[in-house]
Amino acid sequence: MLDFSTILEVECTADISICSVDISVGKYGNLPLIRSETKHNERSFTPVSDLNKSVSGKTVWIRARLHTSRSRGKQCFIVLRQKEFTVQAILNVSNIVSKSMVKFSSGVPKESIVDVEAKVSEVPNNIASCSQQDVELVVSQLWVVSLSAPQLPLQIEDAARPEKPEDEEGLNIRVNQDTRLDNRILDLRTPTNQAIYRLEGGVCRLFREALTNKGFVEIHTPKIISAASEGGANVFTVSYFKGSAYLAQSPQLYKQMAIAADFEKVFTVGAVFRAEDSNTHRHLTEFTGLDLEMAFHYHYHEVMMTIGNMFTEIFKGLRDQFKNEISIINQQYPAEPFAFLDPPLVLEYNEGRKMLAEVGVEVGEEEDLSTPSEKLLGRLVKAKYDTDFYILDKFPLAVRPFYTMPDPQNPKTSNSYDMFMRGEEILSGAQRIHDPVFLTERAKHHGIDISTIAAYIDAFKYGCPPHAGGGIGLERVVMLYLGLDNIRKTSMFPRDPKRVTP
Amino acid sequence: MLDFSTILEVECTADISICSVDISVGKYGNLPLIRSETKHNERSFTPVSDLNKSVSGKTVWIRARLHTSRSRGKQCFIVLRQKEFTVQAILNVSNIVSKSMVKFSSGVPKESIVDVEAKVSEVPNNIASCSQQDVELVVSQLWVVSLSAPQLPLQIEDAARPEKPEDEEGLNIRVNQDTRLDNRILDLRTPTNQAIYRLEGGVCRLFREALTNKGFVEIHTPKIISAASEGGANVFTVSYFKGSAYLAQSPQLYKQMAIAADFEKVFTVGAVFRAEDSNTHRHLTEFTGLDLEMAFHYHYHEVMMTIGNMFTEIFKGLRDQFKNEISIINQQYPAEPFAFLDPPLVLEYNEGRKMLAEVGVEVGEEEDLSTPSEKLLGRLVKAKYDTDFYILDKFPLAVRPFYTMPDPQNPKTSNSYDMFMRGEEILSGAQRIHDPVFLTERAKHHGIDISTIAAYIDAFKYGCPPHAGGGIGLERVVMLYLGLDNIRKTSMFPRDPKRVTP
Repeated sequence: MLDFSTILEVECTADISICSVDISVGKYGNLPLIRSETKHNERSFTPVSDLNKSVSGKTVWIRARLHTSRSRGKQCFIVLRQKEFTVQAILNVSNIVSKSMVKFSSGVPKESIVDVEAKVSEVPNNIASCSQQDVELVVSQLWVVSLSAPQLPLQIEDAARPEKPEDEEGLNIRVNQDTRLDNRILDLRTPTNQAIYRLEGGVCRLFREALTNKGFVEIHTPKIISAASEGGANVFTVSYFKGSAYLAQSPQLYKQMAIAADFEKVFTVGAVFRAEDSNTHRHLTEFTGLDLEMAFHYHYHEVMMTIGNMFTEIFKGLRDQFKNEISIINQQYPAEPFAFLDPPLVLEYNEGRKMLAEVGVEVGEEEDLSTPSEKLLGRLVKAKYDTDFYILDKFPLAVRPFYTMPDPQNPKTSNSYDMFMRGEEILSGAQRIHDPVFLTERAKHHGIDISTIAAYIDAFKYGCPPHAGGGIGLERVVMLYLGLDNIRKTSMFPRDPKRVTP
Repeated sequence: MLDFSTILEVECTADISICSVDISVGKYGNLPLIRSETKHNERSFTPVSDLNKSVSGKTVWIRARLHTSRSRGKQCFIVLRQKEFTVQAILNVSNIVSKSMVKFSSGVPKESIVDVEAKVSEVPNNIASCSQQDVELVVSQLWVVSLSAPQLPLQIEDAARPEKPEDEEGLNIRVNQDTRLDNRILDLRTPTNQAIYRLEGGVCRLFREALTNKGFVEIHTPKIISAASEGGANVFTVSYFKGSAYLAQSPQLYKQMAIAADFEKVFTVGAVFRAEDSNTHRHLTEFTGLDLEMAFHYHYHEVMMTIGNMFTEIFKGLRDQFKNEISIINQQYPAEPFAFLDPPLVLEYNEGRKMLAEVGVEVGEEEDLSTPSEKLLGRLVKAKYDTDFYILDKFPLAVRPFYTMPDPQNPKTSNSYDMFMRGEEILSGAQRIHDPVFLTERAKHHGIDISTIAAYIDAFKYGCPPHAGGGIGLERVVMLYLGLDNIRKTSMFPRDPKRVTP
């Protein structure tokens, strides 16, 4: 194995005019590009998050971003950043740190990645601007691992600045959504974004764990499909060799086929595509669907409550396992903590209509809820029951798709439900018709040309258990859980009618 | 709540001519379509897998498929199937079972779903044809929940028949791949397919668990992209509002952007699209990619061994948690148990070349392995090291993409690796070039027009840690782990140049 310090000195002595008078020679500079020459198993790095009084006096190696630096005479103050953690580092001209080394260090562009050897030192007064407040690093070596361009299209501090109501005049620089998205790799480095996407990964994991523990099987459904589901509106067309195909707007047919094929309880996590020209805060053309489908014995509430309880498990998991992430995000985007009940609240559609009517908003018996009515009902439910999550059961038959099972006890309603977070719909689901004859009848009633859905109807021809399910938009769940105002904040690389980059 | 038996008697008495002389009235028939009228919380169902001597003498309710039935005089023998489990049920004309009930039961089409009330009874001789061998069910009620069409396009027994070498003349009926796929909901009901897709879900879970435990973050990357990666060959075009876009052939750029954005270790599970007109046993146009990317300190072996050890964890998990599934699959498709080493075997490319040369197969120093050479090397490695999994490190630079980091010690090789299962490649990975200047130089060397990859190069402009990663095809891993001969056996709804249905 090559000796690392030898290489570096060789590199440095090449520029003999500086090094010859430099007492810090071999202690700073630009590292050659790391191409895996050596393994350096002897060197271990300390995470910035571990820097506190308990390691005071120790010498550590840190690899981190140079977040900010400022020099003052013979000193250079640096803030090092690693994900959401920051620590102050200081270089003082001394018998081991040369003037050249201080000069070099203060000239390293922000966002460069550096390897720093330093002694951890307690500070008399807490450093309020860093996450590690009770120690600083006294630097003895500083090497640039990866250099950033000196001009940044956005500043991490600006992108990370809290949105506070008292800054109504906008005195502080903000970074607008498009600038953020155009420069996503910088924007994603803010503590808030680091936390958002860790939490989003957590939602997926909690979703799968809750369902796996209940005996669900994970499946994968095709995104390229031969026929446009749901009538061909809002569907993307794909050139497929000499013909064409479509991008799936939902895995529903395939989930139902898995049920007809005896998998009993299935879920799938994957991309869902909607060619809808909606430029709103909550629409994306591509999003991550968390979908599930489940056979039941006698009543679709077996499934509805499985889903409702799954949400409770997700909310508990987020509250207990992502406390730090939620607190970081709230510092930038303040929001009320997400309130939920265990077991979840279930209201019937007609009860919802009644609550709205009591405050003067009339919704017809066979009419859908408008977005403003949904939000208002969310506020009424929150005020009455203190929950940001609830289930609205028994939607009007007239506003649901043809495959929804009608309610046998009321011809105007159906065995279908939506679930809401902070007054916005995050899941739509129902008992599906599992009988091909009745399904055909309902499709005809909706004026659907049966020949276009023959394959769907055929899936139920060889015996199928009664079943229900639902589909969840991951980005919407994360947005609403955190009380954020735009779904582009919870999609790492969002797609909308105007954006397919980066 | 309505009383269930009352409804049934009402239903039945409508056809008074039969019922009036039937002692079993109200004990059999076609249930009305289950539309969630009642909850029947009082009734609990016993899984077929729980039927054994320990519940002998008990009366149970079972919901299952009618797998087969045959009647003989006053008796009807039925096999009930639930996923991979089967049990024999018997109806004898008696003081509670009428002749009409036996006749009705023997006329229920195969694959119908039935609710059966029965007494569990020990049998003197094991029933070899069923999974539950030491008991049978003496039926007292039989209700059809969901009727199958009487003519099946394939028989489950045929689709489930073992492929045994002694049946060389093909005396037993086999179901060919296209018939299976055209009627996938039936084909998926075989014990083997039930087991394959549960195991496939297990591979995903084990992949994620192994990585989550090591601090990886799950991300979601867009499938719709603005520019065709890797030169535009083999890419599907999508109509995107008034313009067009492409389907991602790999999440690589986005994984790398997540690394440049400080996520440090990321993985993603999702659809990957290849518009390749390859009609082979191992190519699909859409498959499930298990992708990961990880920053390292000094050497890409930190990543390569993380991936290698992750495979070991997956193999251990499959061996320990999916013993039953593997045994069921092996009964239909016999295969040698999958052998692996802990830690995994790592060979250098040149060692592989040497092993091939020793048996007379010459591969040039800067030449890629052909598929036959790969398979031969797999056999040589198995014979020498007794492992079906190994890592081949240090591929020739000439056969890898432009973004692969060249080996600093040998201009002809690169910091790249493939991983193999039973002699077929299942992962390709490498250290990526994280420096925009060197990346530009290498792209030019490959004759790539820099303007087409500007966005990719820019991802590394603001500091990026050295990193490596790889991509895995889920269906290929499952196929090779189980020693199956066709990737269409491990994709629930496969897509190839000739198939986009069902």
